Amino acid sequence: MDIQGIVFDLYGTLYDLGSVTRACEKAFPTRGVQLADTWRRKQLEYTWLRTLMERFADFDAVSEDALVFSCEDMGLALDAGTRRRLCDEYLKLQPYADMPASLRRLKDAGLPLAILSNAAQGSLTQVIGNSGMKWGFEHLISVDEAVVFKPHRKVYLLAEARMAMRRENLLFVSSNTWDAAAAKAFGFPVCWINRQQRPFDQLGAMPTVEVADLEAMAEWVLAVSLK
Amino acid sequence: MDIQGIVFDLYGTLYDLGSVTRACEKAFPTRGVQLADTWRRKQLEYTWLRTLMERFADFDAVSEDALVFSCEDMGLALDAGTRRRLCDEYLKLQPYADMPASLRRLKDAGLPLAILSNAAQGSLTQVIGNSGMKWGFEHLISVDEAVVFKPHRKVYLLAEARMAMRRENLLFVSSNTWDAAAAKAFGFPVCWINRQQRPFDQLGAMPTVEVADLEAMAEWVLAVSLK
Repeated sequence: MDIQGIVFDLYGTLYDLGSVTRACEKAFPTRGVQLADTWRRKQLEYTWLRTLMERFADFDAVSEDALVFSCEDMGLALDAGTRRRLCDEYLKLQPYADMPASLRRLKDAGLPLAILSNAAQGSLTQVIGNSGMKWGFEHLISVDEAVVFKPHRKVYLLAEARMAMRRENLLFVSSNTWDAAAAKAFGFPVCWINRQQRPFDQLGAMPTVEVADLEAMAEWVLAVSLK
Repeated sequence: MDIQGIVFDLYGTLYDLGSVTRACEKAFPTRGVQLADTWRRKQLEYTWLRTLMERFADFDAVSEDALVFSCEDMGLALDAGTRRRLCDEYLKLQPYADMPASLRRLKDAGLPLAILSNAAQGSLTQVIGNSGMKWGFEHLISVDEAVVFKPHRKVYLLAEARMAMRRENLLFVSSNTWDAAAAKAFGFPVCWINRQQRPFDQLGAMPTVEVADLEAMAEWVLAVSLK
């Protein structure tokens, strides 16, 4: 394998969604975990459905819609202030603890790094800026440019184009099993971050390698690249 | 509104999935409800994802994959016999109690009826035959022909073509909120069957009418058509 660059997913892969769960719990005591889970599931459903319906709206809008539905469905009264506050949590996400050092090692080895995310371009830039990680990435690629969400092939094509590399030389890293499966089917070598020992989705494509965290990912990349 | 024909969704709209839940409960006591829910959710996810990935497999295969994943994820040991038995439940579904009489009234009013389903063509034919409902429908339309799943527009185009009617004259009936939203966005008038008083998905399209069951649907159609 000749890895010349790495493209990372954002939500749940480099950045921890745990702060969103805590904010949900603060807003709706005892219901926060269920709300955060439902909200995340509906976000993804809406990205897939809107892409299939050919009715793209950016992730900020889709996420807000998903929150509104989730609260309605759970019988929670969502006032305008809480709605704004919970949505804003997505701009203040923090990286997983092992992220900065792992990325530093990869950059020191000369590998260009990028993010390929469902996030709206403005939000993507803010998350990286707010967490002081601008130094880490050559490209912050939003699906906005493709006007479809993952896992439409147009999104993965963006990464190839912006990195100016062939897909077989671009490692794709995601903790989202469906994203990892689709990226593999597209033609990237894929590293699946499986922090919670979950099974991989049955979608007819398996990742190249499975690791437990970003540190193990960096280890694996450096071992493979130095061969 | 000039309704000249009606196209129905199958799973959960005309046919009750309750028997699947009971079979899951029999196979895995105390875990059946959660398994049936997870299985159904993963079925839908896989249809959307495979369509986006351009890796169509028919619903029988996708459903079996979804069952395998769901059992793995819940830590349930699924032997080959149980796997076969649970999948076969989908061929033996029974209609909701108010379905035959409601359809009879619509047919007596001269309206041609059809089913447009994610089900594989063979399975669709079997479900209708096994439940003695062949008399009800002019067309049993499977997504197989379009080689994509709902809500891709190619699927809704099939219904227009097979019914040989314009979309604005075809009433689409579904209990699945995402299916109802997409069919409305496509251009059908849409009747949403909301048996459980759930909120409608936030996908930028609302149904033409919401009713509680198939009997109320038939009432509404006849009232609108006779105007």
